[in-house]
Amino acid sequence: MSSPDPRNGRGRGVISRRGLIGSAGVGVAAAGAGVLAGRMSSPAGAGTVSPTVPFRGQHQAGIVTPAQDRLHFATFDVQTTSRAELIELLKTWTVMAERMTAGHEATPDGAIGGEQYAPPTDTGEALDLHASKLTLTIGFGPSLFTRADGTDRFGLAARKPAALVDLPKFTGDALEPARCGGDIAVQACADDPQVAVHAIRNLARAGFGVVSVRWSQLGFGRTSSTSTSQVTPRNLLGFKDGTRNIKAEDRDLVDKFVWVDRGDDQGWMAGGSYLVTRRIRMLIEPWDRTTLHEQERVIGRTKGTGAPMGGREEFDELDLQSAGPSGPLVEADAHVRLASAEELGGIQIMRRGYNFTDGSDGFGHLDAGLFFIAYCRDPITQFVPMQNNLARNDALNEYIKHVGSGVFAVPPGVDAQSYWGSTLFD
Amino acid sequence: MSSPDPRNGRGRGVISRRGLIGSAGVGVAAAGAGVLAGRMSSPAGAGTVSPTVPFRGQHQAGIVTPAQDRLHFATFDVQTTSRAELIELLKTWTVMAERMTAGHEATPDGAIGGEQYAPPTDTGEALDLHASKLTLTIGFGPSLFTRADGTDRFGLAARKPAALVDLPKFTGDALEPARCGGDIAVQACADDPQVAVHAIRNLARAGFGVVSVRWSQLGFGRTSSTSTSQVTPRNLLGFKDGTRNIKAEDRDLVDKFVWVDRGDDQGWMAGGSYLVTRRIRMLIEPWDRTTLHEQERVIGRTKGTGAPMGGREEFDELDLQSAGPSGPLVEADAHVRLASAEELGGIQIMRRGYNFTDGSDGFGHLDAGLFFIAYCRDPITQFVPMQNNLARNDALNEYIKHVGSGVFAVPPGVDAQSYWGSTLFD
Ligand code: HEM
Ligand code: HEM
Repeated sequence: MSSPDPRNGRGRGVISRRGLIGSAGVGVAAAGAGVLAGRMSSPAGAGTVSPTVPFRGQHQAGIVTPAQDRLHFATFDVQTTSRAELIELLKTWTVMAERMTAGHEATPDGAIGGEQYAPPTDTGEALDLHASKLTLTIGFGPSLFTRADGTDRFGLAARKPAALVDLPKFTGDALEPARCGGDIAVQACADDPQVAVHAIRNLARAGFGVVSVRWSQLGFGRTSSTSTSQVTPRNLLGFKDGTRNIKAEDRDLVDKFVWVDRGDDQGWMAGGSYLVTRRIRMLIEPWDRTTLHEQERVIGRTKGTGAPMGGREEFDELDLQSAGPSGPLVEADAHVRLASAEELGGIQIMRRGYNFTDGSDGFGHLDAGLFFIAYCRDPITQFVPMQNNLARNDALNEYIKHVGSGVFAVPPGVDAQSYWGSTLFD
Repeated sequence: MSSPDPRNGRGRGVISRRGLIGSAGVGVAAAGAGVLAGRMSSPAGAGTVSPTVPFRGQHQAGIVTPAQDRLHFATFDVQTTSRAELIELLKTWTVMAERMTAGHEATPDGAIGGEQYAPPTDTGEALDLHASKLTLTIGFGPSLFTRADGTDRFGLAARKPAALVDLPKFTGDALEPARCGGDIAVQACADDPQVAVHAIRNLARAGFGVVSVRWSQLGFGRTSSTSTSQVTPRNLLGFKDGTRNIKAEDRDLVDKFVWVDRGDDQGWMAGGSYLVTRRIRMLIEPWDRTTLHEQERVIGRTKGTGAPMGGREEFDELDLQSAGPSGPLVEADAHVRLASAEELGGIQIMRRGYNFTDGSDGFGHLDAGLFFIAYCRDPITQFVPMQNNLARNDALNEYIKHVGSGVFAVPPGVDAQSYWGSTLFD
């Protein structure tokens, strides 16, 4: 169709996100690691405020940012073999990501204000929506550096961190290849799911021909607190999740267990982190047939308040020493014992997972569970021993199944001039 | 495990939803069809109010209720052949549904307050959450009345409404059997997705052995307004959706096109409606490569404001008569023309759909689209001719694919004494 435009006065651009949100807050570098509070920018003409999380800073947002309510996570396979094309896309993505996290369209006037005889450069479904604390966080998988067959597509092999290797096969793993890996991962978190979905979709769109979506996962509700300012949510086993998580306010723990330090490994990762994802199916039916007593024994905490065994309140100290009436108060195979720093020579991780429900499993049950996300300074010395201990011994294993997996090097934050991954490529 | 409980003072029951929400608003019958506003019940001790939608009334909630933000929809196959067992389940479900929509646990003290050596009767993940305007709406598929092979499992064949037949195959249908049909459907809508997911899961749990989940669909954001009090949301094509929908406030249209009347057909359906679901994949890539001009031509409205062709504002009148510079202002194959009452001899439906994104399609694209839900008084004379016209002629067909389908007889609301479907069974 190429008939001329019959629509005069159709008010194009009038309600673009750009118009709606204003330009306050874009491009202002976030100062340092502790940027937790969303900055408020007042949408013009609206009585509400739209919380935004700064995009630029020493670290990427979406890690120690208080976990937003909703998630859309995607991994991409890189199709091009041109390093220049890949860098070009990362630059484009950076500009788009900064815009979208500030509540703007992916591109200026992208949805409706552009050339009418060209495809819009923003897909438009977030036009009337606020930033909703959107964060976008990028990570690079081991396969970006070297492929399984050893190919070094982008001249990155020498810069591959020692910590970035495919996770070992854990006892009981039932991984589906189509839910594993990926050259690049992008985590989109926001309080409005449409904002998170829009962001991933527009990055995918801009990447057309250069990258393709490998898998994606919607998380409908956060399962972790990552800040002391947050209420602990519940996962789909009905238990509070995140009680003994590292919280953003624990700056020492964050520095020790989340951020890669300058001397750790590859210099380009300083200020970065490692992202581990595990898609964990819950076997809802056996769990639902289990007594409350058994459920609490398996986790090692009470279901109601989340208090540890023997405690009264959620944040009472976890007592791994005392004896109960018949054995230890927290049993030997209880989840919280096996995952605890006390049990694991002091190691910890920061969890940032989401509940999912993806239709039916074809056998009359809901396909539901926990999309586990963790950030750590070194997956090999933190996540792997922890998951090994759980995979071998956790009483919870009777009720869960790991079906997806990924590990990604999350580069540091981008400063005013740079782009996602610039420390790796430049 | 049967070791005695070591946890005294673990505060069981302290934070049950029952305790949280109080009992105001339960069991009070909603007066008549126009019950749109959620009643407020103040959670004890909390500074906020928790909006609830009355469960009982002349019509089921979740139809003309202003569309909540999130959806979990499931269909079930009935496994038992016992009519008594089926009725028993419907009675149990009614009690649970009424409780959950009021912000309570599925069963009294179900998650943590029951017998410690018995499985909890509520799965617990909504313990700390409000009712969040939860509505639960039940429907019965054609197969509940007579199976494809003619079997009348429950002695219902004679009560099958003439309007309740499997939808015909429409041009271009690419239906996947695993996403179609079901003996019973339950639509859970709420402003918090965890509340909707919890509700479906607990109904499924209570139905174990009697029914099994056939398919389920999460909708992350509403695509329709069903009330003049709501802002029109956008679907994943980026267009406002629901502008010319029937709104709950249009009482005459609702009576004419949504509610089954006493004289229509089977008496037990009086006050009920018919629910049609279509899982519609969007072929995002061809759409995203299309010009704004073409996109607007295809829909027949502008993308920015949602104004009709030639109009300035969203709610300006749709002009199907006037000529544009080269042909009709709204083209012959534009979606809104083909779906309009003007084109279809006056018929209308009430749309109540949701956006979905379910991972990747395995070919590098997001599996995203519109989970179309419509309510109508007679699918054969309303939905079928409308969809026939669209399936044959709609310019939009180049960008969408219907992959799932269902049609269900939605019985009237339940009064103080009755249960879901009582007019059918009693
Ligand atoms: C579906 C799978 C899982 C469920 C349902 C689950 C659930 C829970 C729950 C309810 C708690 C107690 C509350 C808290 O302190 O956060 C907990 C603690 C914890 N979980 Fe998990 N978890 C799962 C998988 C994992 C995995 C895969 C890991 C890491 C490999 C992990 C690591 C931890 C850690 C480190 C703690 C804190 C232990 C402590 O120090 O007290 N969890 N989990
Ligand atoms: C992915 C598929 C679909 C998309 C993206 C879509 C999108 C839209 C949009 C953007 C509008 C204009 C705004 C409005 O008035 O609501 C609209 C109108 C409408 N659509 Fe759809 N639609 C889809 C499928 C369907 C189907 C399957 C039906 C029914 C069989 C349907 C029935 C209608 C009706 C009745 C209208 C109002 C037309 C009027 O009277 O102006 N749509 N749709």
